[in-house]
Amino acid sequence: MIMKWARFKVRNQEYYGVVDKGEVAVVKGNIFGDYEITTEKYPLSQVKLLAPVQPGKVIAVGLNYFSHIGEFHKNPRIPEEPVIFMVSPTAIIGPEEEIILPYQEHEIHHEAELTVVIGKEAKDVKVAEVEKYILGYTCGNDVSDRDLQKMDRQWTRAKSFPTFKPLGPYIVSDLNPDELQVKARVNGQVRQNNTTASMIFKVNQLVSFISRIMTLYPGDIILTGTPEGVGPLKSGNICEIEIAGIGVLRNSVK
Amino acid sequence: MIMKWARFKVRNQEYYGVVDKGEVAVVKGNIFGDYEITTEKYPLSQVKLLAPVQPGKVIAVGLNYFSHIGEFHKNPRIPEEPVIFMVSPTAIIGPEEEIILPYQEHEIHHEAELTVVIGKEAKDVKVAEVEKYILGYTCGNDVSDRDLQKMDRQWTRAKSFPTFKPLGPYIVSDLNPDELQVKARVNGQVRQNNTTASMIFKVNQLVSFISRIMTLYPGDIILTGTPEGVGPLKSGNICEIEIAGIGVLRNSVK
Repeated sequence: MIMKWARFKVRNQEYYGVVDKGEVAVVKGNIFGDYEITTEKYPLSQVKLLAPVQPGKVIAVGLNYFSHIGEFHKNPRIPEEPVIFMVSPTAIIGPEEEIILPYQEHEIHHEAELTVVIGKEAKDVKVAEVEKYILGYTCGNDVSDRDLQKMDRQWTRAKSFPTFKPLGPYIVSDLNPDELQVKARVNGQVRQNNTTASMIFKVNQLVSFISRIMTLYPGDIILTGTPEGVGPLKSGNICEIEIAGIGVLRNSVK
Repeated sequence: MIMKWARFKVRNQEYYGVVDKGEVAVVKGNIFGDYEITTEKYPLSQVKLLAPVQPGKVIAVGLNYFSHIGEFHKNPRIPEEPVIFMVSPTAIIGPEEEIILPYQEHEIHHEAELTVVIGKEAKDVKVAEVEKYILGYTCGNDVSDRDLQKMDRQWTRAKSFPTFKPLGPYIVSDLNPDELQVKARVNGQVRQNNTTASMIFKVNQLVSFISRIMTLYPGDIILTGTPEGVGPLKSGNICEIEIAGIGVLRNSVK
């Protein structure tokens, strides 16, 4: 059964909830363990959605769409194994929050990415078993300062500034992660538009691979890489990441 | 006053403690907040020391000793700003635990590093104020798979395998981090031996710089880079990291 998880704030209290037909029902307990969906419901229009998860670890995958590698390299090379890096969880914001550019003069790009939310402790998981360890999927925007990325060569700083990891609006379970349309729009204009079918390493390969390096815990997230079409964000822009079956993650830029 | 913090296990219970004259006194409460040093004491010889902290974030600094940059680059270049990256906290082990080589055929190196343990939430901290945000210092071994480091270019995988981040034996407060002798020995033979006075970016600059990128929380750690003399670890080796005023972090290699 497809579940749509949200985190939200209402009357100054934060809750997890389950979304159905324009309403969100408060969840009591641990969404990764024992929980209860209560009868306490709010119209979505009356709550403030938060980033749907507060991860311990944020792992990201680079160079996972051939079309994107070509944007930066004259002779694009397909990596033999996934290229991973980590960014700080303090960069995460929710839907409708502002992306704040720390350096107005730098080239700072949006990157639309299917984002995996881990549901169960995962260590040395086989590719065929990965599904069981996933709570669901959300939209991620891997905002990246290209000037610092080039300068540092390591990507952590360029991608870890506060507000650089918008997530949301929901975590949706039981999707097929290998055929989802991923889009980015800036001020309504489509910049990125591709399908996760174009990924070099698919979600089950990525989660299995990473789980052989580090134990993944409930709530940890994996940003699975971005397709071609990345481009600059400027103060005053509205950036939307849309993934079919999940929804639209919308953030303004300051 | 210099305090020597430990985490340890005795009779199957885990505790924080304060070390003095060969004994460790159990600490009750939160070592980063309100705590009490109790009169319950154990001889150090009767407890098992654990990694002295369980960080949320592990941040590491690359290329922070000119002499080490020269080991890998023909024309070493001093970075204009610190180069940071992150590794998984699941890599951490304590004193006397085994470093497990995931690929016996790879070149896997020790890296002796002064490691900073954050004591208070730190955001946009000025260089002159950094000291207040530090709980203390410990020895870190930034074990690194050179084959994977070269292949990935991003350093997270090469440095995140389980057991790749030995820490300990103690967290020592109120040291001057800018004049500590840092050594690595393998089977008793000195491989690395330099002082933190040789760092390109000093501890107060590093913490200030990182706190402007990401909020640091109590228990987060920063590995501050390694001097020249890194070299291979082989199954059966004993690797010791020694920092003056802190102690010896000793691990065998499997």
